[in-house]
Amino acid sequence: MFYHDSKLQYPVTVQTPAPRFARLLQQAIGGVEGEIRVCLQYLFQAFGARGPVKYRDLLMETGTEEISHIQMLATAVALNLEGAPASEQEAAAAHNPVVAAVMGGMDPRQYLSAGMAALPSDANGVPFDASHVYASGNLVADMYANVTAEATGRVLACRLLELTDDPGMKDMLRFLIARDTMHQQQWLAVIEELGGAQANLPIPNSFDVSEEIREVSYDFVSTGLDGVPIPEGRWSSGPSLDGLGEFRVRKASPLGDKPQLAPPMPQGYAQVQQMAGADGTRQDQTIRTAPDSDQS
Amino acid sequence: MFYHDSKLQYPVTVQTPAPRFARLLQQAIGGVEGEIRVCLQYLFQAFGARGPVKYRDLLMETGTEEISHIQMLATAVALNLEGAPASEQEAAAAHNPVVAAVMGGMDPRQYLSAGMAALPSDANGVPFDASHVYASGNLVADMYANVTAEATGRVLACRLLELTDDPGMKDMLRFLIARDTMHQQQWLAVIEELGGAQANLPIPNSFDVSEEIREVSYDFVSTGLDGVPIPEGRWSSGPSLDGLGEFRVRKASPLGDKPQLAPPMPQGYAQVQQMAGADGTRQDQTIRTAPDSDQS
Amino acid sequence: MFYHDSKLQYPVTVQTPAPRFARLLQQAIGGVEGEIRVCLQYLFQAFGARGPVKYRDLLMETGTEEISHIQMLATAVALNLEGAPASEQEAAAAHNPVVAAVMGGMDPRQYLSAGMAALPSDANGVPFDASHVYASGNLVADMYANVTAEATGRVLACRLLELTDDPGMKDMLRFLIARDTMHQQQWLAVIEELGGAQANLPIPNSFDVSEEIREVSYDFVSTGLDGVPIPEGRWSSGPSLDGLGEFRVRKASPLGDKPQLAPPMPQGYAQVQQMAGADGTRQDQTIRTAPDSDQS
Amino acid sequence: MFYHDSKLQYPVTVQTPAPRFARLLQQAIGGVEGEIRVCLQYLFQAFGARGPVKYRDLLMETGTEEISHIQMLATAVALNLEGAPASEQEAAAAHNPVVAAVMGGMDPRQYLSAGMAALPSDANGVPFDASHVYASGNLVADMYANVTAEATGRVLACRLLELTDDPGMKDMLRFLIARDTMHQQQWLAVIEELGGAQANLPIPNSFDVSEEIREVSYDFVSTGLDGVPIPEGRWSSGPSLDGLGEFRVRKASPLGDKPQLAPPMPQGYAQVQQMAGADGTRQDQTIRTAPDSDQS
Amino acid sequence: MFYHDSKLQYPVTVQTPAPRFARLLQQAIGGVEGEIRVCLQYLFQAFGARGPVKYRDLLMETGTEEISHIQMLATAVALNLEGAPASEQEAAAAHNPVVAAVMGGMDPRQYLSAGMAALPSDANGVPFDASHVYASGNLVADMYANVTAEATGRVLACRLLELTDDPGMKDMLRFLIARDTMHQQQWLAVIEELGGAQANLPIPNSFDVSEEIREVSYDFVSTGLDGVPIPEGRWSSGPSLDGLGEFRVRKASPLGDKPQLAPPMPQGYAQVQQMAGADGTRQDQTIRTAPDSDQS
Amino acid sequence: MFYHDSKLQYPVTVQTPAPRFARLLQQAIGGVEGEIRVCLQYLFQAFGARGPVKYRDLLMETGTEEISHIQMLATAVALNLEGAPASEQEAAAAHNPVVAAVMGGMDPRQYLSAGMAALPSDANGVPFDASHVYASGNLVADMYANVTAEATGRVLACRLLELTDDPGMKDMLRFLIARDTMHQQQWLAVIEELGGAQANLPIPNSFDVSEEIREVSYDFVSTGLDGVPIPEGRWSSGPSLDGLGEFRVRKASPLGDKPQLAPPMPQGYAQVQQMAGADGTRQDQTIRTAPDSDQS
Repeated sequence: MFYHDSKLQYPVTVQTPAPRFARLLQQAIGGVEGEIRVCLQYLFQAFGARGPVKYRDLLMETGTEEISHIQMLATAVALNLEGAPASEQEAAAAHNPVVAAVMGGMDPRQYLSAGMAALPSDANGVPFDASHVYASGNLVADMYANVTAEATGRVLACRLLELTDDPGMKDMLRFLIARDTMHQQQWLAVIEELGGAQANLPIPNSFDVSEEIREVSYDFVSTGLDGVPIPEGRWSSGPSLDGLGEFRVRKASPLGDKPQLAPPMPQGYAQVQQMAGADGTRQDQTIRTAPDSDQS
Repeated sequence: MFYHDSKLQYPVTVQTPAPRFARLLQQAIGGVEGEIRVCLQYLFQAFGARGPVKYRDLLMETGTEEISHIQMLATAVALNLEGAPASEQEAAAAHNPVVAAVMGGMDPRQYLSAGMAALPSDANGVPFDASHVYASGNLVADMYANVTAEATGRVLACRLLELTDDPGMKDMLRFLIARDTMHQQQWLAVIEELGGAQANLPIPNSFDVSEEIREVSYDFVSTGLDGVPIPEGRWSSGPSLDGLGEFRVRKASPLGDKPQLAPPMPQGYAQVQQMAGADGTRQDQTIRTAPDSDQS
Repeated sequence: MFYHDSKLQYPVTVQTPAPRFARLLQQAIGGVEGEIRVCLQYLFQAFGARGPVKYRDLLMETGTEEISHIQMLATAVALNLEGAPASEQEAAAAHNPVVAAVMGGMDPRQYLSAGMAALPSDANGVPFDASHVYASGNLVADMYANVTAEATGRVLACRLLELTDDPGMKDMLRFLIARDTMHQQQWLAVIEELGGAQANLPIPNSFDVSEEIREVSYDFVSTGLDGVPIPEGRWSSGPSLDGLGEFRVRKASPLGDKPQLAPPMPQGYAQVQQMAGADGTRQDQTIRTAPDSDQS
Repeated sequence: MFYHDSKLQYPVTVQTPAPRFARLLQQAIGGVEGEIRVCLQYLFQAFGARGPVKYRDLLMETGTEEISHIQMLATAVALNLEGAPASEQEAAAAHNPVVAAVMGGMDPRQYLSAGMAALPSDANGVPFDASHVYASGNLVADMYANVTAEATGRVLACRLLELTDDPGMKDMLRFLIARDTMHQQQWLAVIEELGGAQANLPIPNSFDVSEEIREVSYDFVSTGLDGVPIPEGRWSSGPSLDGLGEFRVRKASPLGDKPQLAPPMPQGYAQVQQMAGADGTRQDQTIRTAPDSDQS
Repeated sequence: MFYHDSKLQYPVTVQTPAPRFARLLQQAIGGVEGEIRVCLQYLFQAFGARGPVKYRDLLMETGTEEISHIQMLATAVALNLEGAPASEQEAAAAHNPVVAAVMGGMDPRQYLSAGMAALPSDANGVPFDASHVYASGNLVADMYANVTAEATGRVLACRLLELTDDPGMKDMLRFLIARDTMHQQQWLAVIEELGGAQANLPIPNSFDVSEEIREVSYDFVSTGLDGVPIPEGRWSSGPSLDGLGEFRVRKASPLGDKPQLAPPMPQGYAQVQQMAGADGTRQDQTIRTAPDSDQS
Repeated sequence: MFYHDSKLQYPVTVQTPAPRFARLLQQAIGGVEGEIRVCLQYLFQAFGARGPVKYRDLLMETGTEEISHIQMLATAVALNLEGAPASEQEAAAAHNPVVAAVMGGMDPRQYLSAGMAALPSDANGVPFDASHVYASGNLVADMYANVTAEATGRVLACRLLELTDDPGMKDMLRFLIARDTMHQQQWLAVIEELGGAQANLPIPNSFDVSEEIREVSYDFVSTGLDGVPIPEGRWSSGPSLDGLGEFRVRKASPLGDKPQLAPPMPQGYAQVQQMAGADGTRQDQTIRTAPDSDQS
């Protein structure tokens, strides 16, 4: 069950409102790297968690923290929209700051749809879509998904920091960057506690690897044509990371044949020519009959 | 530049067509864990790769391989739709196998929209959406995204293997599972080659960590109320994974104040009551004026 | 800022797991009438609230409650997926309950993508999309949006109640229905407190109505052809609900002319025939020139 | 059945084309507050209407009117794109007005995809998505959805009016604002005719309220922690709006227990560590077996 | 401007309600081959039509007809949901026809969200998305888009006809199939009237073809590797369809070089290793500095 | 199976990076007229091809070529983002070219999400959605879909050519325009080889036309009211294009009756008033009972 108090997790101040920066902040709210995504991702992982309860608890802890981050960023957007200072205005529109701001690059829906507030959308105005909430039921797969989210999230926050000179915004972003630092490590720490890559690969480790086609389990398949140099590295030779094999290089070549599908079945309503011989010659147009009586 | 030959990477055969299994295979084609996603993800990472060229080459190699996997799975779907055997049919519809199959659980659009073939959609018929193509420009963030994709992809393939008894389908899935085994390790091997977690954390490692609010960089923030036990583990004490700090636990409490937004600006067209005092009492309805002359 | 404890707002039990009912419950989680939507809607309205602070506080209170409802429903889904009892199984698949359940109507992604847990999607597997989060910045418009959400939400919960005999599920739904009863009234109570329909219409009431074309502000426009009876009621005669006019009926007829657009500009790359005269005769194909030298 | 004539419902003229305003008008066409939405919403409510036929007729009347509004706005967009006057042009691009307009903030797809015409998308170019068409089968729920649509629609039109000085555009918007005034009241008039809130609450009123958990039907649940003031108002005390109870305040506290999910089933392919004891210690890695013979 | 009367364009009757067929009909309403799409497509092409007015008029005529088709299909869905006859019911659920129908394959949202009526979605419940509305501003491109829509629409209607034995449904579909017959030809007739393929190719014919790289304008590029037979036909030799060249075969080979992107710029926050030399060796970790003082 | 080499199909160079043009190029990558769409469309048509194998081979050839076009355009985007020259910069932001570019109209996600590289999205940042991949199983329907794609694709490329002065970009676009010239004709050549329109209409030609309601198969239905001139042309009189009938004009008038739906069933939870008589008078509120005992 969830609760709230009336304060922010960290101070959010804006010295000079910047409507166009408000658009960019949307990426950290409703973008694929943003806070709605991690919030729902951690909570859904927690709600469906099976197995040791402490990982469920861990996910609940941080999923709840992320709601507070959404709140911080939405507050930051609203504050950036409070007035459009002169530096944002084009000369022609200077008599009407709303016109200047909307015309000059802000997300128009922050005004048109929200009355100068945040939307649950990204920096291009594309609404958040919950297909990005990864919760596979496999703890280690989910931890890697979470590391990914926090890695792209911290990259995003660093880029946003480049785009503002406002002391309040910089301070807020520096806090969020620090939290991403922790969250990246937090999810990797779970993997380490579970034995690290060696104990957990391949994911899922509950599948008996002898059931897979072991011939190709450690082959780096090169699809480059002759003359294309094969990129060599840790993945092309030496022991595999799961300790169960040796990496090697295999030049791509087909193991299968040309696919052979059956002809179209009548109910599929292909063209009659598709139902004819392989040479593509058309059969008689017996199906598309000319009715005798319908045109008088 | 890209080329093809006319064969499959690995044999795809179906002994007993199963239209409902054809629906499930869609998840591996157009689902978030599926092959269209990894194909486009690796190719877009390659197309935008900056820095050492061998990682670009590596992404091109495997991105190209994934196109062949889409082809294998699409072929598998088409073969599973070639005839609906008796075991798939309900008694009431036995005279018309198409009716039986469509009514009995297959993806109706595999018939209605594709004439018994695969769609670029997931097992619920939701079309693939390229927002799932992660290509951040940060190599290690992208590698973790790739590990995630291959981890959830292998989990998916294992689950699909549970749902079929067809020898051809099992063989195909065992091949794909093995390739996922390799691909998981391949992307982790890049991280290892780059120095592992310690050298790469926090991601991006090109941001000077002293710029972040270091006070909270290694704090596990517990949002649980009093009485909720704090989940302890590798993340709650001991050295941080980047070697730059110590994990510790911080009980959540607000560092900020209650957010204070400005009143609605007139152009925002809030209700007049919102523009009144903080006690919520309405001001005079001066704005919504009653016109004198409009009803004659 | 947000917090949690480790318990559920209300007990969630399932006596007889029903995987197909688990699919239906998804509508209450990730459907347009569902809990993710109201949760984000109330929170975004709160985060962007301008004007009297008590309405912001009110939205925070209930937005937080809705997170607990998501948790309850996600738990209900997971419990319904724990085992597939005999009554769910078809004879042909009885040896494998997972096969039976997935083939027999459940959301396949609850297994394939989530390992037997809830998804942030609707009953057809369509992911939640945050475009449904209405937060307009106009308090009364938002209250009506909230009433709508709770009205369709309660209708949905009543329909779900029809589809289960499980005592635990019925109990949970009866709780959620009761909460929807309250929430409907809660948002209407805000409108009442603000003066009711008369004081608030038309929304926004901060726009001077004399600026609109008052000739048509209370006209019921009938678009039916001659012979189609005009539906009469409270809306076709008598005083308007805002107290500023009289309803009347106006038979639809155009006040404007036929729209006249300019010809295509050359940079638009219409066909040359579109750039010709209004009679549709083609002009000389001067633009599509036959090159002299490119084919040798 | 539907018909048309060749004229517009109301004149649409543009004195000074403004390509960037054409972008903003898109919100009124394909946005969630826009005309495609209300058009389809009223028509689908009509097509599925059950019960007294006059409400079906009413919905048909206004659903048809909204098609004419789409036409007006699409015409307005096209006219705004006919030439890019000097005031829209940046100096550097003045030699090519198309370049200037597209680069300077208009929706690039109005040119790239539509050749200077309207799209069925919102002001950010996000295509209209019919999930916003609410037609629940419950008349009063639908009426509230319609009031919401017209309330947000009128707010939008007022905001658009702020962003243009063009006399033709202002005239068109003032007409649309007036129609929204009527439509808001029209749908509320249906509710009034049906007995008003008291007769219709809770929605649906065809569900026997004694079936719900009446203990909580009129409780305002406060999720704020101690120290957070409870927002008081019409919703926290006094008779309920349906006349069936008394509002009161309940401090949030869990009525349920900690959720307990079963361990992962083997077919779910969780990690083996998830299948181990509650302390998180890993069991022997018996499943991930090292094959003897696959690497030669 | 638009009008309606109270009748259907063609009779819609259902002898034996079939809830599962109601799901399939959704594809013809809200699917990419469906009626909402053609309705909006023709109307948006009309609203933005530039050039000879008769094509605009033609589009208005048929766009309006399609609204009547949506109405017919939505009515058909509603009638198919009126009672679930015994043949649709499974034995175990026979006491509750709603349960039987929803559990047995119908679109659950037709009940849960619409109370037994049509949705603006496809047969998998995916909402219609207006990105499918093609209106390019080029008349011939649009006519081909319209032919495509009517071709896939008629294929769909034929497939639906296979899936029902109901006389009323068959009659309705035979009417819609006939209308699609006309509409296919209607749009092709426009192209014929404009001079046919020869006069209109390449589309747009207002672009001076000598501006393109004529070397490759009639080359069939074969991307097959050696040994893959080149498919020969009308496209591989002989005069081009625009009369301006000769088809020929060109074996794919790169005309460009390996792409060379610049190194990551510092503000992009790639990993520091990406900013190092082309050999992939890491540079010193000078950026990720260890702070001295933040951990006490 | 698929392969690659390390070069581009055609040279891609950028003399003067133009971040805003990089945004526009996105339409050709991830827009509905773009290369991801045709790539997947041709490949899925090939993967599901039934009937003469040479058409499958043809689709594979060109589907593979389109991957190379995605690569070219993604490379073009990346090169356009390499530095933001002075002409792109506003004076106020001149000290920071990233700020200038992002604020000044580029797709912010090319920086925020991709670190200065291409996204699989359109010019408004809307991700590509695979519902646009048409593969109907009917060869001629699919060929028309392909012509449409190449027609809108070439229109788009011509428009993009208008928006750049960069010699490298112009050269690349002229190559792509030429390839679209070929591809348009290639797909039309298939139809010609199959007998042209006459042999193939109506699509599907495998449906016996005497099954459709022939009374209306060649009627141009005019939905215009009296006074609206009927657009006459090739479609309104003369022989039909399939040679099986005569075009004629039919004034729209309903052949059906007013639709009659059953009253709401109780489980649908309409309002009780909907369940009352056709006059809309409410029945007694027997269902919404006042509980005696729940409020103490």
